[in-house]
Order: sequence, then C-alpha cells, then structure tokens
Amino acid sequence: MSTTHTDRGAPRTNAPWGWTDAHRAQEIAVIGATGAVGRELLELLVQAGHPASRTSTFARAASTIDVAGVEFAVKPMPAASALRAASLAFLCTPSELSLALAPELVAHGVRVIDLSSAYRLAPDVPLVVPEINGRELERSGLLISNPNCTTAILCMPLAVIDRLAGLEEVVVVSFQAASGAGLPGLQTLAAEAREAVGAPATGPRPKSPFAAPLFFNVIPAIAEVDDTGISGEERKVIDETRRILGRPDLVVEVTTTRVPVERCHSVAVHVKTKRDFVLEDIIAALEASPGVAVTRDPHGPRPRECAGADPVYVGRIRAGTRGTRSLCFFAVGDQIRKGAALNALQIAARLRAAP
Amino acid sequence: MSTTHTDRGAPRTNAPWGWTDAHRAQEIAVIGATGAVGRELLELLVQAGHPASRTSTFARAASTIDVAGVEFAVKPMPAASALRAASLAFLCTPSELSLALAPELVAHGVRVIDLSSAYRLAPDVPLVVPEINGRELERSGLLISNPNCTTAILCMPLAVIDRLAGLEEVVVVSFQAASGAGLPGLQTLAAEAREAVGAPATGPRPKSPFAAPLFFNVIPAIAEVDDTGISGEERKVIDETRRILGRPDLVVEVTTTRVPVERCHSVAVHVKTKRDFVLEDIIAALEASPGVAVTRDPHGPRPRECAGADPVYVGRIRAGTRGTRSLCFFAVGDQIRKGAALNALQIAARLRAAP
Repeated sequence: MSTTHTDRGAPRTNAPWGWTDAHRAQEIAVIGATGAVGRELLELLVQAGHPASRTSTFARAASTIDVAGVEFAVKPMPAASALRAASLAFLCTPSELSLALAPELVAHGVRVIDLSSAYRLAPDVPLVVPEINGRELERSGLLISNPNCTTAILCMPLAVIDRLAGLEEVVVVSFQAASGAGLPGLQTLAAEAREAVGAPATGPRPKSPFAAPLFFNVIPAIAEVDDTGISGEERKVIDETRRILGRPDLVVEVTTTRVPVERCHSVAVHVKTKRDFVLEDIIAALEASPGVAVTRDPHGPRPRECAGADPVYVGRIRAGTRGTRSLCFFAVGDQIRKGAALNALQIAARLRAAP
Repeated sequence: MSTTHTDRGAPRTNAPWGWTDAHRAQEIAVIGATGAVGRELLELLVQAGHPASRTSTFARAASTIDVAGVEFAVKPMPAASALRAASLAFLCTPSELSLALAPELVAHGVRVIDLSSAYRLAPDVPLVVPEINGRELERSGLLISNPNCTTAILCMPLAVIDRLAGLEEVVVVSFQAASGAGLPGLQTLAAEAREAVGAPATGPRPKSPFAAPLFFNVIPAIAEVDDTGISGEERKVIDETRRILGRPDLVVEVTTTRVPVERCHSVAVHVKTKRDFVLEDIIAALEASPGVAVTRDPHGPRPRECAGADPVYVGRIRAGTRGTRSLCFFAVGDQIRKGAALNALQIAARLRAAP
C-alpha cells in the first residue's frame, strides 16, 4: 500500500486545531452525540483537550458512550434547560430537529453550530469552511451553518483554483462512502459484506439507508431525485458550492454516487477557468493551502488511505483536454472529519471563545 | 433490490445474436481461452449453438475447461498449424501476442477479430461496435479490432445522442469493475473481501493487478499515467471514442477509476451538444436503439444488477446545468460481454460466414 499520500502535503492531523484554554473554559453541548458525526466531534474535543466535565451530550435516548477512552453520559432530548446552560452547542441532528432547536437556543444566547442542512441557504446565517470564507464569522450572529460533507471537501481545492484562475464551470462526479449515511450506512455495508462471503453476522443490521445493496455495487444517485432529474445531494453541492465560494453565478454540474467504501468521500472534478494558468502554479498553491495535501502518487489519493486524516488530499492534477483553460483533479476527504465534525470544530476554534 | 432495469429496455439477452447455421459451419479458434474474456466468449458460442467440435481453444498451458456444461480441451500456444485450420480466430490475448499472431493468421487467410488494443488505432483495421459503425465491416479486410471495454459501453448511448444533437464535448468519469483486470482482478478482490471480514481464504490469491488494495476503496487511475497526467485507460477512451463515432475532432475528457465491483463498468457522463434537443426525444431514441436499455429507476442503473446482461443500461438522463445544450446520464454495461466477448461475437455474426 502506498504511503505517499502525505509526502508533500499537510500532516494527517493538526490537532488541537487552535483550540485554546479560553475555548476549553466554555460549556459545550453536543446534540446528536451518538451518531457518526456526534461521536467524531466528541473524539476531536477530547483530542483538543476539552474537559469532559464541560461537555454535555444529548441524544434521542439516554446512554453512556465511551469515546477515545472518555465516558460520556448522554442525556435524552429534550432537556432544554440543560441545553441552555451551554455557551456553545453543536447540532449533529436531522434538519427538522435543528429547525426546532436552533431558534430556541439562540434566543437564550447560546451560540449554535448546526451541522444539518436546515440553515445552509438562509441568507442571514453564514455557511462556513474556515479556510475559505472564515472571515464571514466576524460578522455572524449566534447561528452558524456547517456545509454538506461532499461540498466542504470539494470546495477546499476549488477555492484555491478560483483564486488563481477564476472558475468558470465545474463538473463533479462524487464517490460517497457508506458512512455518509451515518452508522446505519456503515453497519449495512459491513453486514452485506459478511453475508456476501458467507461469514456469520457480528454487529447490528439496521434497515438499509440505501436504495439498493451497496456491497460490490455503485448507486448512481443519493437522496430523492426531483422532477428535473437532479438528486437532493446534487442540489446541495450546486447551491452550497456557489455560496461558500461566493460565486452565485458559478456553473456547477454534478453526479453524486454511493460506493462501497467505509469512510471518505472522493470527487473527480473537471473544471474550466476564466483565465489562463500555469499548471505548476496551481499545484504549488494547493500545496501551500492549509487543509489541503497534494499527492504525487499517480494512482492516488484513495479513500481507504485517507480515513481519519484532517486534510483534503488532491491528486491527478492535470491539464484538461477541453482547451487551455481546462483542468482535472481527484480529491478525497474524510467526510466525517473535514466534511462535518472537524469543520465544525474549526469554526468554533476560530470564533472568540464565548464568555 | 429493484428489478426495474429492464422495464423499458431490451431483454437481458438477445441470444443467439444472429448466429446462423452458416456461422455454425465455421471452424473457430479462441486464443486466450482460459481468461475472463475467453471463457465468456466460449459461453456465448455455446449459447449461440456453435458446435464444440468446431471450436478450438488455445492458451499458454494445456488444460481442460468446462464452460456452460461443455468441456473444451485447451491446447498450448503456439500451435500455428492448428490455428491456421480455423476460418475465424478470436484473439483474447495481450497486445504483444496479438501483434505476433494476427499477421501470421491473416497471411494464411484466417479472419481475425482481435480483442487486444494492438490494432485499435491502425488506420486500415476497422474498430467496430456493430450497432454504431457495423457498416465498416463491409469494406474490411481479414483483421478487425474490438474496442476497449469502457469505450464500447460509453459509445452505445453517445452514438445515439451524436446522431440526434451532435456531440460537442464529452466529460466522462468511469467506475470500472475488478474483472476489467481479468480473473486475477476478480480473485484479488474476492480474497481482499474475505480477509477484511476475517473469513478463511477459499480461492487462489494471485499477485494483485491493482496499484493498491481495492476492497472498500477507489483507485482513481487505471494503467500507467503519462507525463501529461493522463492514464493509459483514459487515452484509450479518448482515442477510441473519436474513432468509433467517426468524430476525430470530438472533445473527450476522462477520469477512469477502479471500484470494488465484480463485474460491469459504469460511466457518469456529462455532455454538451452542438444543437438544441428535446430531452424526451433523446430518451425515446435511446429506448429505440438496439443494445440500449433505458431505466427509469431514479437510483439506477447499477453494476451489480446489470451483470450478465447484453444491453448497455442508461439512466439518470437529465438536462445539464451548463446551458440548454448540456445533458447528463449514467450508463452501465457488462464489460466482459458488450465490452468484449459479446461485441466480438456480434462482429462475427454480422460478417458473412467464412467459407
């Protein structure tokens, strides 16, 4: 297995991600703590040195979970009073729940980072990838939205190219991991794999969140497909890419697919730019960008090797064949980290710690 | 599992594919009979009713193989005299071997269908997908070339769109199955899967033909990557698509990837056309095209469900977002059948039977 993924790029993690003692003094609530993203966020908080005593965890049902060797007592929702005692709340919740909780928390002065899609297109709520448009946090209110996982990963290299050469058009095909559908997605894939090779079942087998068997398969649409033939996931990538890059006019065309991968979303990206560029300048700019790691492995980056790492890995950077202003690349990011929990923590770290 | 893949399209197979008694009177040689494509071709010949007594099989080593209940005695190569007794030879061989064998066979009056890449760009050798440019067979010599598997599948819907609206530009991202690397690819994926779930090994585990572990992974390049960053597989798709469609000027931009799928290559395709089109006209034309099956399943077609079928399945047909002349679709075809053995048999069936 190649280990060249980090040969020119960032280290696999930049923990503690700028999390300071002032941040560690905050009372933090993680809502939806038992899901894939909630657990990852708790793990990052532990790694960042946030005291467990100042971390409250909530989910549908009460339980005790062990994350990175630390035990968390999960309280059942709703527990509005306990929630309101926090100064910062991460909502790792479905959109409907975020829509109900966020206004109530904000009304009580709690800063909220929402990881659902509920507020991503709300004009007065910033949608932030800190490395790209972190400055929007300077004039934000208490509510901040965290982007769609595929979009966050896609935008990391796109923002660099946009700065250098001006994006004109983006065609993207995604390869999304099972864990993009949360723990049930991961458990379904694992169960299907064991069944396929005749191995006895081990873990739980929930109702599959996928439209078809995923093992040894590719499912070429994610979420509902609308009357125009565009899937819900594709719509998110289009709308949120435009918003994060501050390019409401940008032409984005997308196919999103689910593949039998446990963790890390990949994107094959074909762009056209407004201005001429020198390929090596683009590569150098990507290498110099925080949160981006360039791989020179001709057969990388690959999702399996990128799991658990912070950066978005970019490889196969090459001139396109659609004229001198075309460019292709392949990018991979851990969608539970940079696509969700890590990005949310980076937002929180960039904010001045709440009093 | 959805079974709607064939709801509007062709049946799963059109055996015996126009194979007549005149064809059945031919002495046929299959060279490279023990590989994935060779075995598939023998199976198709059995299904087409070709007598085993008129089918000679050759491979590196002598063996006996059972295909679809029929036993074939495989002779070791070279056996030039036995070969020359055939009136039609299928070369399921590596390019180097095809380059050595084809001229010799042709010199002895044997008609040759070469499935390697050796002659695909040779100006005097037709490169044929019968449904698209089968007319080229009318003026061909004894040597005919069978296209790259991804390209054959891709071109089936592209040819229809080109006819209706004139292709201007094609962006394609492939999801290629393990068996595209032959039986070693399939065996490697199976062994990796068993190992991953802790199941005991069953079959042989050859040296992996892949650049990295494929199980639960995506490998974003196939074959060597050249100085311009384009992979060997991508170069084939570009060159052969232009040739098969008779459009040497066509702009084709490609990313080819390997995914943990056993069988069937998929392509996400984003095109621009020269002329305006009505989306339903394109869909109707695809539905009416021999060898193409349109699926209305919003989450299809998928490789697992298309394995072993003749047609190229096309779904997710939708207007693009890159102007009124943009169009997207997802296509899946069995690359061992339409991408290789079936296409070769269709070429042979379309030729007047050799005397």
